[in-house]
Amino acid sequence: MSLPAAALHDAPASAATLPPSPEAVAAVTRALAASFGNRLVTSLAVRQQHGHTLTWIPNQPPDAVVFPQSTEEVAEIVKLCGAHGVPVIAFGTGTSLEGHVNAPFGGVCIDMSQMKRIIAVHGEDLDCVVEAGVTRKELNENLRDQGLFFPIDPGADASIGGMAATRASGTNAVRYGTMKDNVLALTAVMADGSIVKTSTRARKTSAGYDLTRLLVGSEGTLGIITEVTLKLHGIPEAISAGVCPFPSVKAACDATIVTIQSGLPVARIELLDDVMIRGVNLHSKLGLPETTMLFVEFHGSEAGVKEQAERFGEIAAEYGGGPFDWATKAEDRSRLWQARHDAYWAAKALRPGFDSVATDVCVPISRLAECVEETKRDIDAMGLIAPIAGHVGDGNFHTQPIVDLNDPEEVARSQGFIDRLVKRALAMGGTCTGEHGVGQKKIKYLEAEHGAPALAVMRTLKRSLDPQNILNPGKIIAL
Amino acid sequence: MSLPAAALHDAPASAATLPPSPEAVAAVTRALAASFGNRLVTSLAVRQQHGHTLTWIPNQPPDAVVFPQSTEEVAEIVKLCGAHGVPVIAFGTGTSLEGHVNAPFGGVCIDMSQMKRIIAVHGEDLDCVVEAGVTRKELNENLRDQGLFFPIDPGADASIGGMAATRASGTNAVRYGTMKDNVLALTAVMADGSIVKTSTRARKTSAGYDLTRLLVGSEGTLGIITEVTLKLHGIPEAISAGVCPFPSVKAACDATIVTIQSGLPVARIELLDDVMIRGVNLHSKLGLPETTMLFVEFHGSEAGVKEQAERFGEIAAEYGGGPFDWATKAEDRSRLWQARHDAYWAAKALRPGFDSVATDVCVPISRLAECVEETKRDIDAMGLIAPIAGHVGDGNFHTQPIVDLNDPEEVARSQGFIDRLVKRALAMGGTCTGEHGVGQKKIKYLEAEHGAPALAVMRTLKRSLDPQNILNPGKIIAL
Repeated sequence: MSLPAAALHDAPASAATLPPSPEAVAAVTRALAASFGNRLVTSLAVRQQHGHTLTWIPNQPPDAVVFPQSTEEVAEIVKLCGAHGVPVIAFGTGTSLEGHVNAPFGGVCIDMSQMKRIIAVHGEDLDCVVEAGVTRKELNENLRDQGLFFPIDPGADASIGGMAATRASGTNAVRYGTMKDNVLALTAVMADGSIVKTSTRARKTSAGYDLTRLLVGSEGTLGIITEVTLKLHGIPEAISAGVCPFPSVKAACDATIVTIQSGLPVARIELLDDVMIRGVNLHSKLGLPETTMLFVEFHGSEAGVKEQAERFGEIAAEYGGGPFDWATKAEDRSRLWQARHDAYWAAKALRPGFDSVATDVCVPISRLAECVEETKRDIDAMGLIAPIAGHVGDGNFHTQPIVDLNDPEEVARSQGFIDRLVKRALAMGGTCTGEHGVGQKKIKYLEAEHGAPALAVMRTLKRSLDPQNILNPGKIIAL
Repeated sequence: MSLPAAALHDAPASAATLPPSPEAVAAVTRALAASFGNRLVTSLAVRQQHGHTLTWIPNQPPDAVVFPQSTEEVAEIVKLCGAHGVPVIAFGTGTSLEGHVNAPFGGVCIDMSQMKRIIAVHGEDLDCVVEAGVTRKELNENLRDQGLFFPIDPGADASIGGMAATRASGTNAVRYGTMKDNVLALTAVMADGSIVKTSTRARKTSAGYDLTRLLVGSEGTLGIITEVTLKLHGIPEAISAGVCPFPSVKAACDATIVTIQSGLPVARIELLDDVMIRGVNLHSKLGLPETTMLFVEFHGSEAGVKEQAERFGEIAAEYGGGPFDWATKAEDRSRLWQARHDAYWAAKALRPGFDSVATDVCVPISRLAECVEETKRDIDAMGLIAPIAGHVGDGNFHTQPIVDLNDPEEVARSQGFIDRLVKRALAMGGTCTGEHGVGQKKIKYLEAEHGAPALAVMRTLKRSLDPQNILNPGKIIAL
C-alpha cells in the first residue's frame, strides 16, 4: 500500500530535462501507435489544433495527439510517457484562455473527446458521474428530461474535465458556486500512472486530505482528470431575467452589493460596460442603450422569483438604475443570455479582423467599482479597444483588448495594460484570475499574489506528485 | 524563492523517531519557558486537559502547553520543535470527537485560546478575518450589531481554527455548506516554520493550487492554522422553525429528499430518532412525541419563509408526517435548537453516569433511510443504547453509544458496532466521517474508503510538507 507513495517521494527532485529527446518522443509515439492505431494522430494540422488556445502565445503543438476511451487507457499513456520522460497534456475542448493546453516542450496531447459516457445520473441524490470529455451542454441536454441541470456555465461549451481542471465558473457562480463547489469527487491518473478516486458521492466528508480540491484547478499539472462526480440541481420552477441600465459602473456595483447583502438569491448578475454593450448591439442586434448594464436572472418559485425581481427593481432604482426590462418569455431570456455568452465575439465585432486577448481578475466586491473604473481610464489612456464584462456578484470581471498581433508596439501596450490590471487587483486584495486560470500567461503574477512561502508550498506539491515534471510542464508552476 | 520548497523536499523522507527523546523535550521546554514565561505550562492537570477529547481513547497528555499570541509566536514554536524533532499539536477548544488533539507521542500543545482578535469585518464584502482562537459564538456575538452572521454551527462552541482544521459543518450545512465552502483564505504555519497565506479575500480564484482546501480538514497535520478569512451572511429578514413527527425513518428521509429536490432552500433539516427524542425529553423537557422527528428551519423574506414552510408542510403530509408544530417566536425557536444542540448531553441522560462515544458517517441521501434503519437494527441486536441524530439534508448522521468504559466486553461490542456502521456507509457509496474528521479513531477506515492509490497520494502530501512528521503525528495518516 505504501509503495506508490514511496516511489513518488523517492524519485529525483529535479524535473526531467525538457524538452525530451527526439528518441524518447519517437519511442513513445511508436508504442502509442501500436496500442492505439488510428487513435494516435501525428499530422501537423491536428497537432496545431491542439497546441493553441485563444491567446497571443504562438501555437506550440504537441508531438502527437492520442484519443483514449477509458481511464485505463489514460493510465497506460501516462505510464509510457513517464518511462520516457515525455510530457503529457490533457485536452478538453481547447477553450481555455491563458495558454493551458499549449505544448511548450512538445509531448503527447491526450484528447478526451472520445470519453463522453454519462456513467450515472442519481436523481434522488442530485448528482451524476460523467467521463471528462462530456461537455456541459451535452450533459444538460441529457439531464433535461429528468428535470435536472448542471449550473456551471463559463460561456464556452467546455468539457467537464477541462472545467474541473481550470476551476471554471461563470455567470451562475454567484448562486451555485464554482467547479470547486460542484465537484463531489474525481477519478484522476497521477504522474506514476496510478488511478486515484478522490472521494465518494457523499455530500460532505471529513475523511482525510481534500484531494478533490487539490486536483480542481490544477490544470493537468498534478493529475489527469478522467471522470467527475458532479452536484446537480433541480430545474427551477420559475426563471425571470432582465436588463437594467445604470448611470455609471459605480451605481451598478453599489446596486449589486446591496442585492447580495440583502440575501436576494440572484442566480446571475452580470455587468457589461458601455463598450461591451456597443459590441453586443453590433453582434447580436439587441438595440440596448449604450451605457453600463446589469443582466440579471432569478431562479425559484413563481412567487419567489416575482418577489426577488421586484425587490431588485427597487434596489436598482435607489442607485439611479432603470428602466428595468424584464424578459418573462423563455425565448427572450435565451436571446439575452446568448448575447451575453457571445460577448467574446461581440467584442471582436468592435474591431473586425483583429484578435481578442481575454483575461480576468477578481477583487472583493467593495473594491469592484473602483477597479473597473481605474481599468477603464487605463484603457482610454492606452488607446485600446477593450470591452469589460463582469460576474459582479463575485467581484470578477473580464476585459479583452482587441489587438493587432502583428504590431509589436500594440502587443506590448496591451501586455503592459494587463500587467497593471493584475497589479491593481492584487493591491485591492484580489486575485490575478478569478476563473480563467494560470496557464502560461499568469505564472509571472503568482509570487506577487501568494508570496514566496505559499508558492514554495505549491512547488513542493508539484514536485512530490510529479517528480519528473511530465504533467503539463510549464503551466502554473515553472520548475 | 525556491529555497523553502527545496528544503522541504530534500528533507529525509522517513518520519523522525517518535516519541522524541527526553533530552529533546527538555531542550524545547527550556527554550519555550525562556521565551513565553508563564505562557508555557507543564503542570499535569493542564497537560491532561489538553490530552483528551471526547472519546474512549485514554488521556494522552502533551509534554507542555504553550499559549501563543501571534502567528509569529506560533512560527517560533514550530521552528524550535522542528529543530529538536518534537511534535506540535494545535488545540482549539478540545471539542473534537475522534481523538484529534491527544498527544500519543507527547510534544508541545499549542493552545490557541489567546489568539482571539477579530482582525477585520468587511460588511460590504460579507467576509471577516479572525484569529484561530475565536469561537463561533464569540464571532457571532461580535457580528450581530452589523446584521451579519457566520452560519457554520457544529453544536459545540468550537474555535474557528479548529472548525477549519476538522472541516466542520453541522446543522446549517445543507443551506450554507461546510467550512470547506466558507473559508476564503487561511494563514498557517508550515512544518518548516514558514508562514503561508493561502489566498486573498476575492470570492473566487483560479490562481494555482487550492492551498486553502488542502489545509481545511488536515487536522493540524500539514500546517497550523493561525488566521482565517471567512464568508459571512446577512442575518435573514425572517426565520421560521418547526418540528414534525413521522411514522418512520424512511418517511422522514423521503420527505427530506423531496424537499431538497424541489429546491426548497431549507436552512436546517435535522432527524432525531425515537431514542434521541426520549433523551431530549429527559434532558430538555420538551414533551415531544417519542417517534422519528424532523427539526426544520427556513431563512428568507417574510413571504418566502411562509411559502417554504407551507410547501414543506405539504411534502411532510404526503409522507404521513405531521402535525407540524411551528415556532414563530424567537424564544421558542431558541429552545428547540438548544435542545437539538444538547443532543450530546441528552443522549447521556438515557444512561446517567456512563460515557458517550459519538461518531458519524455520511451517505448519498437516497441510501440514508436504509442506512439508518439497518443501524438501528444493529443497535437493538447489540443491546446498545445509541440514539441517532442526523443532518439529513446532507445524508449525514451521528450515533453515540452510551458505554460503560470499564466493561471491556461492552467497549468491544460498541467498537464492533461502529466498524459495521462505517462498513455499511462505505458499501452505500458514503464516507466514514461526514464532519467529525479522522483523528486517531478513523485512520483504520481510510484505505477501505479511498483505496490504496489515493491514500498513497495523501501520504506523499504529508511526507513532502512535513518530512519530519512533527505536525500532530499519529492523526489521519499513520506514517
